[in-house]
Formats: sequence, structure tokens, C-alpha cells
Amino acid sequence: MNISHIEHIGIAVKNLEESIKYYEEILGLKCYAIEEVKDQKVKTAFFKVGQTKIELLEATSEESTIAAFIEKRGEGIHHIAYCVDDVAKSLGEAEGKGVRLIDKAPRNGAEGLHIAFLHPKSTGGVLTELCEYPEK
Amino acid sequence: MNISHIEHIGIAVKNLEESIKYYEEILGLKCYAIEEVKDQKVKTAFFKVGQTKIELLEATSEESTIAAFIEKRGEGIHHIAYCVDDVAKSLGEAEGKGVRLIDKAPRNGAEGLHIAFLHPKSTGGVLTELCEYPEK
Repeated sequence: MNISHIEHIGIAVKNLEESIKYYEEILGLKCYAIEEVKDQKVKTAFFKVGQTKIELLEATSEESTIAAFIEKRGEGIHHIAYCVDDVAKSLGEAEGKGVRLIDKAPRNGAEGLHIAFLHPKSTGGVLTELCEYPEK
Repeated sequence: MNISHIEHIGIAVKNLEESIKYYEEILGLKCYAIEEVKDQKVKTAFFKVGQTKIELLEATSEESTIAAFIEKRGEGIHHIAYCVDDVAKSLGEAEGKGVRLIDKAPRNGAEGLHIAFLHPKSTGGVLTELCEYPEK
């Protein structure tokens, strides 16, 4: 697997507006986009921090995995997303080494990225996303 | 507060050696340093990922906050560390805006950084570290 950088860190929040206020007013970051990802049942807000983004995630339905996460553990860091050159190939390599996959093939995520998740049971409890930038 | 980038992401692990193996063999990252931080009762392992580091943290004592974290939540992402130009000033600003601090003043962390933690009760459940590079 060829990781170039951390694309984003996903953070589960109860209320997007209140959390945006914290990131802007306390940390001094600037929210540059809000996007709903319907098939993940979340509303997201993005902040650039150097090479990496902070992605705040608010559930838009009780069936969202973000709602389940907050119910179990409260608000907090949800996942790390690594940028790779080829998600499909990276998934194949990881599976070949015994890693359990959540997604067997890449799917579309926020900001047009191709994404897939590795299962936290195989990654030391860290929900791990692999992302690839779409071809322009 | 003037954040330039995410300095590192701290990840609580039970066994440093086994986790290093995962980060090297599955993710293809390279551990470049192992360091014990005695006053935090942890052993750490570092990996560079673009601008950011992954810092694995294994407790060296049952009194370590990492041992308590794993006891409560299992292995997983422990904290995010933002690089700022002035930790002392940033702490003052945050406190002035009502943020609860874990450290009232900067102290020494791994790799010679000046560090301080904000309390997750004030940061949406995200244990947040501020770091400043020491003057050379």
C-alpha cells in the first residue's frame, strides 16, 4: 500500500453548527464546505489543516453509523483516512494479508473521493479509510 | 490560535511491537523512532505520513492514562495534536474563551516538543494536544 498523507480525520459530532463554531472560534480553522452524503446518512463539514482535513460528521438519521457511534461512545474521533494512489489495489493487498474489509470495493465518498473502509477489528481499533482522488 | 498543521495523531495500543508490525507490513509505513516518555508512563513509536506523524502509545504502568483509556474503550485513536506557533499563548486564548485545560502551562513531550492538552469536555470529546517545536 502506498500512502502519501493523511487525507482527513473524521470526527463524530451531535450538532454540526455548534461544532463548526468550536473549530472556527477556538481553534481558528475555517469551514470551507458543508456537504450531505446521503448514502452514509451524514452531513459533513470540512476544514483544511495543512495537508489534512478535519471532517465533522453529524448523523441525519438514527440509522446512521455516526448515530450508533455517538450512542455507544459519545462524540469524538471516528476514523482516520489515508490517501493512497489506488484504493482497489490497496484493498486487495490488505485482504491478502488477512485484514478484514468493510468495503470489498471502492465506493464514492464526500468530495468525490473513491473510498473504502478497513474493519477496526483488523487495525488495532482504528476505523481506517483509504481514499483516492478521482481523475480530473 | 494559529494552527499550521496536524503534528501527530496519538493511538493507544496494547502491544507496541505487534502494532508496529501492522503499521509497517499492512500500511507500508516505517517506524523511525521508539521513545519512552517516563513522566507520561508510555512507550511511543513514530511513523511519518506526509506532514503528520502517527504516534503509537503503549502504557508502561497501570497508572498510565493510556492503560485507563484502553481499559475503558479498548485500543484506538487517543488524541489529535495540532502544531501551533506558541502553546502558552494559545492556552491563554483558549482559556479566555471558556475552554477547560488539562495543562495550564506547556510541558515537555516526546521528541522535545512543548505540549499541552485541552480537556475533551470542552472540545467535543476529542482529546486535543497543542504542540510547539522547540527553538533549535
